[in-house]
Amino acid sequence: MFISFEGIDGSGKSTQARRLADTLRSRGVTVSLTREPGGSEGAEQIRKLLVEGRGERWSPETELLLFTAARRDHVERLIRPALARGETVISDRFADSSRVYQGLVRAENRQLVEDLHRLVIGIEPDLTCIIDTDPATARGRGAERGGTEDRFESLGLEFQKRLRAGFLALAQEFPDRIRLIDGSGSQDEVAARVLAALP
Amino acid sequence: MFISFEGIDGSGKSTQARRLADTLRSRGVTVSLTREPGGSEGAEQIRKLLVEGRGERWSPETELLLFTAARRDHVERLIRPALARGETVISDRFADSSRVYQGLVRAENRQLVEDLHRLVIGIEPDLTCIIDTDPATARGRGAERGGTEDRFESLGLEFQKRLRAGFLALAQEFPDRIRLIDGSGSQDEVAARVLAALP
Repeated sequence: MFISFEGIDGSGKSTQARRLADTLRSRGVTVSLTREPGGSEGAEQIRKLLVEGRGERWSPETELLLFTAARRDHVERLIRPALARGETVISDRFADSSRVYQGLVRAENRQLVEDLHRLVIGIEPDLTCIIDTDPATARGRGAERGGTEDRFESLGLEFQKRLRAGFLALAQEFPDRIRLIDGSGSQDEVAARVLAALP
Repeated sequence: MFISFEGIDGSGKSTQARRLADTLRSRGVTVSLTREPGGSEGAEQIRKLLVEGRGERWSPETELLLFTAARRDHVERLIRPALARGETVISDRFADSSRVYQGLVRAENRQLVEDLHRLVIGIEPDLTCIIDTDPATARGRGAERGGTEDRFESLGLEFQKRLRAGFLALAQEFPDRIRLIDGSGSQDEVAARVLAALP
């Protein structure tokens, strides 16, 4: 089974991806916990080009091509082999992040995301958990965490609000695959909601 | 005017691109001389991922996505602005290199090259000079030159022969745009043939 976690920065998706991996492992499931951009050796090198440097370093289209290259590497080197071995793959972000981010940055690129996905990615998660969190709350979490990969975190509260709306719209677009998880309350409370969303 | 030079490794295309730039400049033409992969700041950073490291570092599809990302950056940051200023752009390699290399590495990827080109690149040179050189001669030139970017040079004589055949086939596919230049003889002789091919 292939499960992805999505949400705005600071939504708690990374924490919840890790917690679900721990819970499934405690039940005897073999889990590959991974993330995007990155997740495989080559994709992590491409990630460096994406998350470091100035915000205007790449145009939206070049950025999307780099994300797609990283995702292709991630899928063929890690995700597909793990699934073929019968493991459960849990990824902190996957293609939905590109759909939402790129669609916001340049609306006409939403179709380009789909075209590239169809041409070179193909695979979709069996289940996507969007951790839906109030952007003001999420911003507080992000600030506490710090770190140098500030490319996306620096986009500001207004942009995070638009991202949240983008994720909510995506949940309506793919109702069979995407579950919207209320990200408010304690980590334990959110983790319980994630477990309840599993098939 | 946008002119690209193509050919197998050691064919003399880089030398001829530089010589044509020098000749046009001596005639008062403003020339941007550039190369692929690379040519712009971002594309040169992507180039490092492509030319360094082990040959099997990337799958053909991931490699093509990285080449396409570099080309998109090169086109939007250097080639299109230079053409808009009325300059002549001369590029040592462009999309035809991807067509030939990727088509040889995995035949079914030839269509993927075209699909990606149509989606995110769009532009074609007004004139492409393929410097057609015997692979055995070209290999000798490459060995003299040395260098650390040995990713493609290490592919061997058999592969260079197949590349040459690929370039010859491309010249037949795009007869309006591509001129086949006999790469034998001295640099002066080849340079004279290139000048004779200009419109």
